[in-house]
Amino acid sequence: VVALPTLSAFEAANAVGLAAFALVGSLTAVEAELDLLGVAVAGVATALGGGITRDALVGRTPAALTAEMDVLIALADVVLAVVVASLGRRDLSASPVVTVPDAVGLAAFAATGALVGAEAGLSAFGVVTLATLTGVGGSVIRDVLLQEVPFVLHEDFYATCAVVGGVAFWAATAAGLSASLGAGACAATTLGLRLAALRRDWALPTVDAIGKR
Amino acid sequence: VVALPTLSAFEAANAVGLAAFALVGSLTAVEAELDLLGVAVAGVATALGGGITRDALVGRTPAALTAEMDVLIALADVVLAVVVASLGRRDLSASPVVTVPDAVGLAAFAATGALVGAEAGLSAFGVVTLATLTGVGGSVIRDVLLQEVPFVLHEDFYATCAVVGGVAFWAATAAGLSASLGAGACAATTLGLRLAALRRDWALPTVDAIGKR
Amino acid sequence: VVALPTLSAFEAANAVGLAAFALVGSLTAVEAELDLLGVAVAGVATALGGGITRDALVGRTPAALTAEMDVLIALADVVLAVVVASLGRRDLSASPVVTVPDAVGLAAFAATGALVGAEAGLSAFGVVTLATLTGVGGSVIRDVLLQEVPFVLHEDFYATCAVVGGVAFWAATAAGLSASLGAGACAATTLGLRLAALRRDWALPTVDAIGKR
Repeated sequence: VVALPTLSAFEAANAVGLAAFALVGSLTAVEAELDLLGVAVAGVATALGGGITRDALVGRTPAALTAEMDVLIALADVVLAVVVASLGRRDLSASPVVTVPDAVGLAAFAATGALVGAEAGLSAFGVVTLATLTGVGGSVIRDVLLQEVPFVLHEDFYATCAVVGGVAFWAATAAGLSASLGAGACAATTLGLRLAALRRDWALPTVDAIGKR
Repeated sequence: VVALPTLSAFEAANAVGLAAFALVGSLTAVEAELDLLGVAVAGVATALGGGITRDALVGRTPAALTAEMDVLIALADVVLAVVVASLGRRDLSASPVVTVPDAVGLAAFAATGALVGAEAGLSAFGVVTLATLTGVGGSVIRDVLLQEVPFVLHEDFYATCAVVGGVAFWAATAAGLSASLGAGACAATTLGLRLAALRRDWALPTVDAIGKR
Repeated sequence: VVALPTLSAFEAANAVGLAAFALVGSLTAVEAELDLLGVAVAGVATALGGGITRDALVGRTPAALTAEMDVLIALADVVLAVVVASLGRRDLSASPVVTVPDAVGLAAFAATGALVGAEAGLSAFGVVTLATLTGVGGSVIRDVLLQEVPFVLHEDFYATCAVVGGVAFWAATAAGLSASLGAGACAATTLGLRLAALRRDWALPTVDAIGKR
């Protein structure tokens, strides 16, 4: 067996995440009854929005606008979403076929955010923020465009996983590990937390709930 | 007759577009019953938002914040919109007096986006994306601020014209034409499509409609 | 008495503003019944969003992502807001205990925006725009995330204070004063106008009101 020479585990996770994000984003727009362009924009924005935000904040030309492959993956998944949706299967976004790859994407994107932030010389807080924004930025942009309160702000243990993953990156590198190992720790932490949250329906409390205790 | 030495066809189209965008944006805010500052912000954001987004993405200091003339045009049109609106003529934004200059603006802005993207070394996809974002970015920002789903995402053949214009730029330059000729092809394609869409009420189908066929 | 050697009046005003913005932002999210992460995001975004927007526009790595202190202030105030809100005191955001520090923050942020804009070589319009965006950007981002029309666009004499402050900076430096004195003029003008507006319930007219005169 000959291994694919340039496809690291990291790039594979990134591709899985892009595909899952594009699929979820497109299906959300189909449910909102947007036209084909709207569906394509929502899918591509969900997949690429986090990375573009990351690069804009640290002053890099967005990788998504200079590479071709990311976009082809996103567009292929938009087409897939349209086919799936026109066959009547719109409930797919809550199925493990989508939520598990979506968790992989969150983990991969959080890890790239932490890596880019560390390279740009950000503070510990900056690294955690960039990990989180890279992981959830795409879906926030999509929800703002579709006039919904970003789902990551609503009683869900989603962005929190990326925050903790960013802290794991910082802890690992502060302990002397390399940035690559830190990125691995970030991805593993984010993925593990997200999968556990999906399985156990974790949610953060609201302040109302705290007040009532 | 002495020609104006520094005013190219391109700059003229850009000025027409700025004026039309500022007028449409201000009238939208008047309809939403914002106060005078809100109307001014909506008008200026619609006119300048696309170009500022374009420059922020490729890491340039926004042209709108370093030049004076663009802003003066935008502010003059905000004043015009307030005068027009206080005289009771608020239906102007659907009239050809506004929609044709608005199409010119979409075409001019898409062409500047494609040019800047090519200069920044973006991929073909990046060039098309930047052309589209430059053309529609201002109205997206305005609609997000006014809490409306961006009209470009709703059953309208508007952003699609800029996408095809961006593809025309890419095709022209890939065929060996200069960037200037590519920009001309982009503007002509975008303008022609938009005017045809206005005349014939073109719209993209929704996925529901596709499923029902 | 030994003075704190590195804490200028400017840094003190900035810290007061950060704290007030984080408190107001968190309380707004508590009212919208977000979970703890949502409250933290809203508080931090309100406090840091203006400065991050400012730095992204002129191509600097955001100060909030490289410094530690700003974030610690913001997070401490989020905790304070949660404690206050869970004790049932949610009406705090209209009380002078919050509105006066908030006005100080608006003034301090507008002044940093004008300073950064002048350093980046922006036009007079660019300086005024950057002063305004720095002052109100955080609350605009928060309101967009919470799906509310940004309060600065609604019948309130808030952003207008920062606009006039930016003009004061421009006028002072155009008259030959140093940038520091210009920043002082900007902060004093913004603060004075905002406090007067709070005391006298100033509001800009809507276009309807103008038409009816």
